[in-house]
Amino acid sequence: MKKKYLLAPGPTPVPPEALLSMAHPIIHHRTPQFSAIFEEVKKGLQKIFQTEQDVLVLASSGTGAMESAVSNIFNKGDKVLVVNGGKFGERWGKISEAYGLQVIWLDVEWGRAVKIEDVKKVLEQEGNVRGVLVQASETSTTVVHPVEELAKLTGRRDDCLLVVDGITGVGVFPIPMDEWGIDVLISGSQKAFMLPPGLSFIALSEKAWGFVEKSQLPRFYFDLKKERKSLGKNTTAYTPAVSLIIGLQDVLRLIESTGLDNIYKKNHRLARATQEAAKALGLRLLAPDSPSDAATGVWLPDGIDGGKFTKALKDDFGVTVAGGQEQLKGKIIRISHMGYIDTFDIIVAISAIEMALKRFGYDIGFGVGVGRAQEVLSEGYVPKSGDSGV
Amino acid sequence: MKKKYLLAPGPTPVPPEALLSMAHPIIHHRTPQFSAIFEEVKKGLQKIFQTEQDVLVLASSGTGAMESAVSNIFNKGDKVLVVNGGKFGERWGKISEAYGLQVIWLDVEWGRAVKIEDVKKVLEQEGNVRGVLVQASETSTTVVHPVEELAKLTGRRDDCLLVVDGITGVGVFPIPMDEWGIDVLISGSQKAFMLPPGLSFIALSEKAWGFVEKSQLPRFYFDLKKERKSLGKNTTAYTPAVSLIIGLQDVLRLIESTGLDNIYKKNHRLARATQEAAKALGLRLLAPDSPSDAATGVWLPDGIDGGKFTKALKDDFGVTVAGGQEQLKGKIIRISHMGYIDTFDIIVAISAIEMALKRFGYDIGFGVGVGRAQEVLSEGYVPKSGDSGV
Repeated sequence: MKKKYLLAPGPTPVPPEALLSMAHPIIHHRTPQFSAIFEEVKKGLQKIFQTEQDVLVLASSGTGAMESAVSNIFNKGDKVLVVNGGKFGERWGKISEAYGLQVIWLDVEWGRAVKIEDVKKVLEQEGNVRGVLVQASETSTTVVHPVEELAKLTGRRDDCLLVVDGITGVGVFPIPMDEWGIDVLISGSQKAFMLPPGLSFIALSEKAWGFVEKSQLPRFYFDLKKERKSLGKNTTAYTPAVSLIIGLQDVLRLIESTGLDNIYKKNHRLARATQEAAKALGLRLLAPDSPSDAATGVWLPDGIDGGKFTKALKDDFGVTVAGGQEQLKGKIIRISHMGYIDTFDIIVAISAIEMALKRFGYDIGFGVGVGRAQEVLSEGYVPKSGDSGV
Repeated sequence: MKKKYLLAPGPTPVPPEALLSMAHPIIHHRTPQFSAIFEEVKKGLQKIFQTEQDVLVLASSGTGAMESAVSNIFNKGDKVLVVNGGKFGERWGKISEAYGLQVIWLDVEWGRAVKIEDVKKVLEQEGNVRGVLVQASETSTTVVHPVEELAKLTGRRDDCLLVVDGITGVGVFPIPMDEWGIDVLISGSQKAFMLPPGLSFIALSEKAWGFVEKSQLPRFYFDLKKERKSLGKNTTAYTPAVSLIIGLQDVLRLIESTGLDNIYKKNHRLARATQEAAKALGLRLLAPDSPSDAATGVWLPDGIDGGKFTKALKDDFGVTVAGGQEQLKGKIIRISHMGYIDTFDIIVAISAIEMALKRFGYDIGFGVGVGRAQEVLSEGYVPKSGDSGV
């Protein structure tokens, strides 16, 4: 009977409206009914990607869209710079190597953002770099990388693309694709889009589509030109994940009615509240200098086994947060702010963390973190005239 | 996109498992399939009522079952003692008067439990009292009345029944019908049973069934003898609320697997946590001497308009609590603990109340109430070997 609270940085909770939409009897995808949904959905995605380019919809996880970026725009032996500051930066490198690209690994300390000067230096020294591959928000370290500044570097070069994994960025905080000049932008259904996993999204700039024309790498399922052609006919090249796209129609309407700006503000407020609560509890932040609004990473106190801690949070308190991956395994927890997560999810998470910390022998005063979070979260509740009482 | 938290003392939240069960295509009620469900359900209800008597299932709100008690066991002109310490005590009196009974109103200050000596005195002075009508838990005042002691008084008399409205009591805290000698016990679907409103339950002792034989009051839909006969055939006299009974099968299994004792403990812990949090915030309890584990009533500080306060909690914070009724209107709030409500619902409610109080100009420190609640709620999380860490 225990209630469950899902605060991992993806998959995120799905709003009941979308769950209900997806529970309707399945419809066929080669019908005017589906095409009408798809047409609405593709326009909605353009608003969130802030682009006039097509946003292609793939039936895959985000990694599929990452792979499609590499296999559709590059060629064997192409030199690419990979910002390697976390598990997902590393994934860019692994995908590129799998396709025979020449990877320049730009290592960044986990928990830090890449420095623009370092990227600039590599681009100048190496010459002939065909792409800079980076995360807008590196989920494993809860860091935001300076995408806008990176786009200024790549924008000056005709022979180099900026390829951005925005899986935990798009819809979380502003990443205006066209305005900033991002060449490839990717996202997935199970983060800010509040859906179950199973869909990924990818948009390419004109410059990137030019690269596609010259790319000779093998591909079939992830053929972006084919998808673009199908999108023009309000459908997908292969069988679409019908119910997820119906759910997508629902969440896009929800996002539209809430307002993207309000969602950005909400995520930022939740992130700040969590950061402040952690500090009030004497805990160190994983990404103190460039924290993401998608999720907050927090170092656990010395001597607490992160595996046991997240297990206790989940099994005993019903609260699912993420632990650390690879070198951070057992040392941190990550608390999500994006999608269908709001004020009281943060209150619940911090309150559960306080109770679990106490159980694990860490001496804190109950309510200290929650109280600090409440101060920040209160800013989201501006009194409307007439109901502020006394 | 705002999340909603339902903490009114009925209707209470419905577990997702039960919602899903009730969303299945409707089945016909005169089928072996339905009878099998009904047979399981009637046995489950006996366990929660702690009785070997039949627990009849009516398609009505709790008031319907209250009316059926009066119309099936009494006669015109019968003298009944009504414990009048809240809106629902008053309802016993109004129903009795509607059927021409002679009501002895035993007024009890709202927020206090009835005193056994007072009941005893009336029974002795009046003579010939055919029934004592009382609430196990008076929802409007969050008070528990001393049912066990009352049963000792009525148990000694062959001519007097103890008729207990346990709508917010049965399944909330122990009310062992047979052991205590309660003659009529009533409950409803939308409280501890965690279902939508629409079902009520009623069980009668042998002594009460004897009264039914002699009762001449008019009744048709609420004919308990007819229902008893149908129950023997695993069905109801009139069309049952099929989907609610399917949901009932689900919640009864959930209650069985959780254990009634664990549920009683949970409710008691949530009640204590709320009481302690209120006191830590300097708020007075509505029922300081005999508080119910079903819900906690709290006086709002002077100068705060309860109507505006509960509206702000609901519209701005998404948290629904109940306000006061009749003489308590605008002066109190009531926070539920029963059914599908657990630790973090209480944390959410208290945290929202703190934030709303601050907005309404009441000077409190954020986290003070939450922190106190966490201390009490932590008692529910006994470390299991191996996961208490360090």
